[in-house]
Amino acid sequence: MSVIEAVRWSPEGDAVRLIDQRRLPGEYVERDVRTCEDVCEAIRTLTVRGAPAIGICGAMGVVTALAGDVDTPAGVFRARLREVAARIREARPTAVNLAWAIDRVLGVAAIAIAAERSNSELLTALRREATAILDEDRAMCEAIGSAGAPLLAENARVLTHCNAGALATGGIGTALAPIYRATRDGRRVLVYADETRPLLQGSRLTAWELSRAGVPVTVIADNMAASLMGLGAIDLVIVGADRIAANGDVANKIGTYGVAILAHHHGIPFYVAAPSSTIDPSTPTGREIIIEQRGREEMVQLAGTPSAPPDVAVCNPAFDVTPAKLVTAFVTDRGMILPPYDFREGWDERMG
Amino acid sequence: MSVIEAVRWSPEGDAVRLIDQRRLPGEYVERDVRTCEDVCEAIRTLTVRGAPAIGICGAMGVVTALAGDVDTPAGVFRARLREVAARIREARPTAVNLAWAIDRVLGVAAIAIAAERSNSELLTALRREATAILDEDRAMCEAIGSAGAPLLAENARVLTHCNAGALATGGIGTALAPIYRATRDGRRVLVYADETRPLLQGSRLTAWELSRAGVPVTVIADNMAASLMGLGAIDLVIVGADRIAANGDVANKIGTYGVAILAHHHGIPFYVAAPSSTIDPSTPTGREIIIEQRGREEMVQLAGTPSAPPDVAVCNPAFDVTPAKLVTAFVTDRGMILPPYDFREGWDERMG
Repeated sequence: MSVIEAVRWSPEGDAVRLIDQRRLPGEYVERDVRTCEDVCEAIRTLTVRGAPAIGICGAMGVVTALAGDVDTPAGVFRARLREVAARIREARPTAVNLAWAIDRVLGVAAIAIAAERSNSELLTALRREATAILDEDRAMCEAIGSAGAPLLAENARVLTHCNAGALATGGIGTALAPIYRATRDGRRVLVYADETRPLLQGSRLTAWELSRAGVPVTVIADNMAASLMGLGAIDLVIVGADRIAANGDVANKIGTYGVAILAHHHGIPFYVAAPSSTIDPSTPTGREIIIEQRGREEMVQLAGTPSAPPDVAVCNPAFDVTPAKLVTAFVTDRGMILPPYDFREGWDERMG
Repeated sequence: MSVIEAVRWSPEGDAVRLIDQRRLPGEYVERDVRTCEDVCEAIRTLTVRGAPAIGICGAMGVVTALAGDVDTPAGVFRARLREVAARIREARPTAVNLAWAIDRVLGVAAIAIAAERSNSELLTALRREATAILDEDRAMCEAIGSAGAPLLAENARVLTHCNAGALATGGIGTALAPIYRATRDGRRVLVYADETRPLLQGSRLTAWELSRAGVPVTVIADNMAASLMGLGAIDLVIVGADRIAANGDVANKIGTYGVAILAHHHGIPFYVAAPSSTIDPSTPTGREIIIEQRGREEMVQLAGTPSAPPDVAVCNPAFDVTPAKLVTAFVTDRGMILPPYDFREGWDERMG
């Protein structure tokens, strides 16, 4: 089994190689970005998407954008570094992972500059840090995969929602990591992918990357999950998370809460697979999470054709909140976490 | 408030006037059909849709298609009647209402022929019967509206799924009838319309006809209903039905079962509004209802653009079954029917 890589170094190491996610599932196109302009544009236009993948792309992009300036005077080179980092960081202002990754690279730069390293040595240090961010993300995905794979028996039938897969990370994804891991271990796992309206990340992205890896996948409309559960066709649900509150409430793609209720009604386990960095002890419960409302155009047309009266009112929340009591367990890079959930400050130390 | 009329006589009575439902919600186009060919084509291409509306259109179409033949010899006219009736009946072979409406018209024709009526008298009898089918359907919708309107208090917030509205009937619809009736009575009712993937009858049709009648309507993706219920934004659910089994299990558009579970989870009443003719005493439970599986093309592209990998597996059941225990009450032309449900043979007589 070969899982796609959404973001990686080009073979020569002089570019960030991306899968152009805007062209999926119609076309598979890899795109190399090097310059600051191209990296920013790739992030801004969702050529690369998914919080971890965006952060990795940004950190690597700082390196590739600076490679041509290595022979300039040290002062010029350092000014250029600050400019490139600032511009890439602003390509998607609300993406926390992007700011975090750029800050990591800048931290390493500050140490190298204090130690009066040459431009070339500074660039090498930046490249090492960007590669570390990529490698750590891959390891995080693998750890989630190891923790979750035992949930998947031979011929397990898993429902997932949205795309928390390889396309969103540097590795084998989060919600999809246990599926890839169990498949790699030789077990047959069958996936049902909610298409995930309005942006169809399930049918466009999850179905595509699983198919490409040879994992059997069936696309369903979001409103078909209940029927499949009622027919006994789903053994478990695995979804990702955008943020996990201190009490275990989960913010994730719109529709996740509904799937959790349906699973509960049918006695089907509902797992949330996410990096432990998604857990936010400073958010006490899901009630404190502000839900982004997106634009109406996503709801009133399909590929340019009107799908609703042009002036009709719409709702378009990007996320919903699933209460902790509907979560059977969290699958994380620190292992499985069972209820009762207590993610207040210091939870990871208490966990040992 | 003025509710659209999906099917009616043209002002001169020489054509069936239809709203072309294929052009909605982009364009509002009325289309007059007269000939047998045009009537069949309108039914076949879903220019007219919804079981009651198709039946009415078919019966009226027999009349308009024969109008030009009234001066032919009686034998020729009667042969032409048989031919037209047979061809229209076959335009959608699985539509029970279409066959039922054509049989009603043919029954009247048989009586007129036995009484040796002239071509012109025969045509008048057919026209009277077709008009009666239309009028009875309108009265049925009104009766459902009267029965259901008391459920809707001032500012009631109703969720509905698919389109069981005026566009599907000769009158004010079934699931939407209580909404139109309460609005006509001067109460403000707010509707949330599930867009209803894959064919989007909710966003294309329900949102359109309610908007046109001035009823406030908000379109949501199917996967947003749970979130709105969790926020306390939905007071009740009203959906239609394709078939109701003797034990009260309900076959309706895919996604209805999921909405019923979500309503149950949140303690929100879930009503099924349908003509009493939808109740089928010969089907003991929902398990005996065979669910139509539709084609893959509805699931893998949007307006011609790929929305999933072209060769991916899909599920596309047209209907699901909601168990009777999730139905708060049935709203019918015979009034509200509360549990326990017993629709075995003779249920209507036992009801009195």
